[in-house]
Amino acid sequence: MSESLVTQLLEEIDKLPIVDAHSHINPHSAASTTLTDLLGYHYFTELVHSAGVPRATIENESLSAREKCELLVEHLAPLFNTVQYSWLLHICQAFFDLPIGEDLTPANFATVYDTAKSRMGQPDWEQQVIRRSNLESVFLTNDFDDPLTGFDTQFYVPCLRTDDLVFKLDQPRTRDRLAAATGIEPTSHESLREAIGKLFEHFKSHGARACAISLPPEFAPAPPASSNWFDRVREVGNPEVSAGVFWMLAEFCRDYRLPFDLMIGVNRQVYPAGVFQGQDLFDSRVSLIQYRELFNAFPEVTFPVSVLASVTNQELVSYAWIFPNVVTNGHWWYSNTPTFIERDLMARLEAVPATKQIGYYSDMYKLEFAMPKFGMYKRVLARVLAECFVVGRGWSEQRAVELAALLLKGNVEDIFAIK
Amino acid sequence: MSESLVTQLLEEIDKLPIVDAHSHINPHSAASTTLTDLLGYHYFTELVHSAGVPRATIENESLSAREKCELLVEHLAPLFNTVQYSWLLHICQAFFDLPIGEDLTPANFATVYDTAKSRMGQPDWEQQVIRRSNLESVFLTNDFDDPLTGFDTQFYVPCLRTDDLVFKLDQPRTRDRLAAATGIEPTSHESLREAIGKLFEHFKSHGARACAISLPPEFAPAPPASSNWFDRVREVGNPEVSAGVFWMLAEFCRDYRLPFDLMIGVNRQVYPAGVFQGQDLFDSRVSLIQYRELFNAFPEVTFPVSVLASVTNQELVSYAWIFPNVVTNGHWWYSNTPTFIERDLMARLEAVPATKQIGYYSDMYKLEFAMPKFGMYKRVLARVLAECFVVGRGWSEQRAVELAALLLKGNVEDIFAIK
Amino acid sequence: MSESLVTQLLEEIDKLPIVDAHSHINPHSAASTTLTDLLGYHYFTELVHSAGVPRATIENESLSAREKCELLVEHLAPLFNTVQYSWLLHICQAFFDLPIGEDLTPANFATVYDTAKSRMGQPDWEQQVIRRSNLESVFLTNDFDDPLTGFDTQFYVPCLRTDDLVFKLDQPRTRDRLAAATGIEPTSHESLREAIGKLFEHFKSHGARACAISLPPEFAPAPPASSNWFDRVREVGNPEVSAGVFWMLAEFCRDYRLPFDLMIGVNRQVYPAGVFQGQDLFDSRVSLIQYRELFNAFPEVTFPVSVLASVTNQELVSYAWIFPNVVTNGHWWYSNTPTFIERDLMARLEAVPATKQIGYYSDMYKLEFAMPKFGMYKRVLARVLAECFVVGRGWSEQRAVELAALLLKGNVEDIFAIK
Repeated sequence: MSESLVTQLLEEIDKLPIVDAHSHINPHSAASTTLTDLLGYHYFTELVHSAGVPRATIENESLSAREKCELLVEHLAPLFNTVQYSWLLHICQAFFDLPIGEDLTPANFATVYDTAKSRMGQPDWEQQVIRRSNLESVFLTNDFDDPLTGFDTQFYVPCLRTDDLVFKLDQPRTRDRLAAATGIEPTSHESLREAIGKLFEHFKSHGARACAISLPPEFAPAPPASSNWFDRVREVGNPEVSAGVFWMLAEFCRDYRLPFDLMIGVNRQVYPAGVFQGQDLFDSRVSLIQYRELFNAFPEVTFPVSVLASVTNQELVSYAWIFPNVVTNGHWWYSNTPTFIERDLMARLEAVPATKQIGYYSDMYKLEFAMPKFGMYKRVLARVLAECFVVGRGWSEQRAVELAALLLKGNVEDIFAIK
Repeated sequence: MSESLVTQLLEEIDKLPIVDAHSHINPHSAASTTLTDLLGYHYFTELVHSAGVPRATIENESLSAREKCELLVEHLAPLFNTVQYSWLLHICQAFFDLPIGEDLTPANFATVYDTAKSRMGQPDWEQQVIRRSNLESVFLTNDFDDPLTGFDTQFYVPCLRTDDLVFKLDQPRTRDRLAAATGIEPTSHESLREAIGKLFEHFKSHGARACAISLPPEFAPAPPASSNWFDRVREVGNPEVSAGVFWMLAEFCRDYRLPFDLMIGVNRQVYPAGVFQGQDLFDSRVSLIQYRELFNAFPEVTFPVSVLASVTNQELVSYAWIFPNVVTNGHWWYSNTPTFIERDLMARLEAVPATKQIGYYSDMYKLEFAMPKFGMYKRVLARVLAECFVVGRGWSEQRAVELAALLLKGNVEDIFAIK
Repeated sequence: MSESLVTQLLEEIDKLPIVDAHSHINPHSAASTTLTDLLGYHYFTELVHSAGVPRATIENESLSAREKCELLVEHLAPLFNTVQYSWLLHICQAFFDLPIGEDLTPANFATVYDTAKSRMGQPDWEQQVIRRSNLESVFLTNDFDDPLTGFDTQFYVPCLRTDDLVFKLDQPRTRDRLAAATGIEPTSHESLREAIGKLFEHFKSHGARACAISLPPEFAPAPPASSNWFDRVREVGNPEVSAGVFWMLAEFCRDYRLPFDLMIGVNRQVYPAGVFQGQDLFDSRVSLIQYRELFNAFPEVTFPVSVLASVTNQELVSYAWIFPNVVTNGHWWYSNTPTFIERDLMARLEAVPATKQIGYYSDMYKLEFAMPKFGMYKRVLARVLAECFVVGRGWSEQRAVELAALLLKGNVEDIFAIK
């Protein structure tokens, strides 16, 4: 297969508008103000840590932003092969004049840092990044007690994140936050339902388009036998409480017509001595059969599903092929590297209806990462479309680009009822 | 690697005769009579359903064959990317004059439907399909009480399917069918053995070449401690009964020198609201270690093994590499798409003796699907042979084609003792 | 991607020196003396057995070396597709004048056998093989009671293999061997610790660079609640004893600053009727989450981890990306074929720091296998570097070769503190 075909497709795909279905953007501070905001991303701190720099050095509170950034740059060398490092180069090249073929090193650190600071200081920096990244809108990850005010909810689309409700309701702080947000003390099954109903009302009225949660590998939702589970709400990590709240959320998703994003398979705090946000891992022994009852019980709820381990992707493909309410969603975290994206994407494209696939989301904390992350995805996509569809099935390039457009924007809008 | 090498190999491979080791063909009605027979295949109904068409609409009994077909064609658009849809196009192009590059749409539906009807009405249609698909013989999937009469068992090779005996013996209807087929009431361990012996006698004398069964992920065969298990034959889904009957079948396979096809990993009825035959899924957490005792206990029985999940393929490769009586068998169902075929095939070709691999089977219900399904397999095979063997190991093209011939026919004949 | 780029990279990579981090070489008899030493490798006997030759025929004690070799050659035909067979051809071509494109057959057996015998009889044969294979040093697998004398421990680096201590301490013979090697009867928790301490002392003082063990899929190390476990030392296969000894070994690795090679996932004796060393298989349902406590408890110990099943590779990548003390180690046994190497390598190269990857080890019993095994790895490596890095990321070829040098030698020296 000729590289020129890939290049040609990529050029067309690069022009397509993007709706980013999942991010951790803070809409009040979406873009970066220094290069440190970029290098502080857990992908870099955890890899630098893994390559040998102590956590105390990395998280030394006495360092200035510039010092912290320089420290990280000094230890980037062992990461030169990683795709995460290539994201950083991509940003520095596209936005901060780093010459192609040059690494980010202590030698050029000052130049790049200062260029970045000056560019990021421009009043329209956020808009520059958005425009150059082709972003049409970006989904957020909002705490359940987020007021959702002070930003454009058309562009920064609210999304109700529910991990705390399902897994941390035993903590008084969570119940206090819930009471503060809704004016309802969750002291019974009924009042909890009422309070959560208020949250959905609040989010829905502020333009929320999804409810979302990340789930550990052993989680297996089932309808509660009775509402008794609420009596154990103060027990630490009681699985019946988690199951009960989760089921209640699914009912509200049905009633409020919100898709329920399931991000399946993460074990939290596997490495407690790791850097901030660099402590979670997984057990790949998970099956979507655990979600059998859920998918059957809520035919009206669309479940965009992300799986953490690539070995679960074939199940995801098959469940999305059979269940009308299961949709494939992006390439998540440890599966968000080119090899796994390519394998998982190929399998999805050849067996899941074109309309039931959300191609990619950035998962980013800062806007600047949309460009390299979607860029990585689009390169893989161009290769797969070239090899499997244009060459493999005799498609026109136009048809291939139409499919790409569904993956990057059309399906996201349809599935989350935008516009 | 040059595409022309792939094309050249594919041309040679396309000339090879095929023995199809597993299908669901009804030998009394092997070919289709209308386009509806093709579009009614569960791959299309379940994907159309998954893409949003209600089951009641798809399975509306009041529609004529033509109306049903048109309805499905109206909803094919979201499937344009799927490999299953490409099978349909392949058939329509090869047999019903659909121009290359054109989709099957409401606009050309009438033309294609009528052309199909007229071609299928030709008296030698079945033979035309067989000849153009290079089929030398096709294995069937016969109910245990099939009389096996009225068809050419040299071409349509009988195969004793035993799912009902192993998993539904608790149902009076199964025991009644067994009694009716053999004249023996299965009222004891001894009479059950006698009855099943009669079945093997019947099948063997009618040219059966294999015994076959599909198995759920948790199944782990073991020799029964005693024959007491028969006492629980009326208990619904009793695993000891299943284990007991299964072990008995393996003994008969040994005594009657029949290979025992194991199709491992399907969960039935995961989605009971799905369309006909579109309700089964799987749990990929299965291991061939569950079959350790079986493979050791029956060294004389050949076990052609199919696995439903591609993640089990490495175990299959390794078990076939070590156990003389384990043979790799085709690419089954949810693993029957180009991506999974390519991965699984590459792994098998580089580590399992050439003589111990059954390349592919169609699993088809209607003869017309042999061409696109084997076609899909042969394209993948040509690529893998070109890349890994001709380029990668310096093989001659002739040697590569010889290996293909073993996979498509030679091994099937040897393993199932045909000719 | 052009094949010429791959060829060019491979030429450069082929010049690189190699440190082989794991083998089963007997340093007193490292090279072969007849072709039988090569064909007697379990990869050939088990595949010939799998393809239909009875174990009794293969292991017939009355055959001479030459007869045994000829017998195996007579049955190589069904293996012509396997990569293992290609290793054999590689050796015969490189060392024994077998013409490229010719198979090893009964027709040329005598010539090749005699050429091999004569070459192997040259006094510097071992050195010839070492030089032509670019080996700078080779790690051994030493029984815990190996005297470690009579060979050059700079070239043949000792490694303390501990399977017997962890899994066979219930056998009197193991305890006797321990007593004989250390002068200490292991009759209590304390004396066992003292004895094992002596082993570490002995190994360390003889240049050992690693401790190693292979582990079954269900193994999940944890700190013993007390030292009571020693009371059950005579119970066959008691898991608490295994866990206790294992934890003690990890403590000694910490104290003696030895990396602890974990080879995870093998089930021993799955097929007891198999040929010598051809009886082990695996259950791919294993997770590194089972090693969570171990990795957290011993931050000072480096754990080079090999996984038997390719489906575990993504976990390995992720754990090595997060845990500073987890390092990826080679491509083991059933994952040591080009397809699995390519998939696993790509995933590692794009997400694990370059310094935390041991590219490959031979696992060989005879020196001659270094060339074809590392050759297989290097071809895959050249392809991956060409496709994903030079073409995919615009790297210079020089940078790609530098990464290869780390994988083949630099990292091994750093991780095991050689030089």
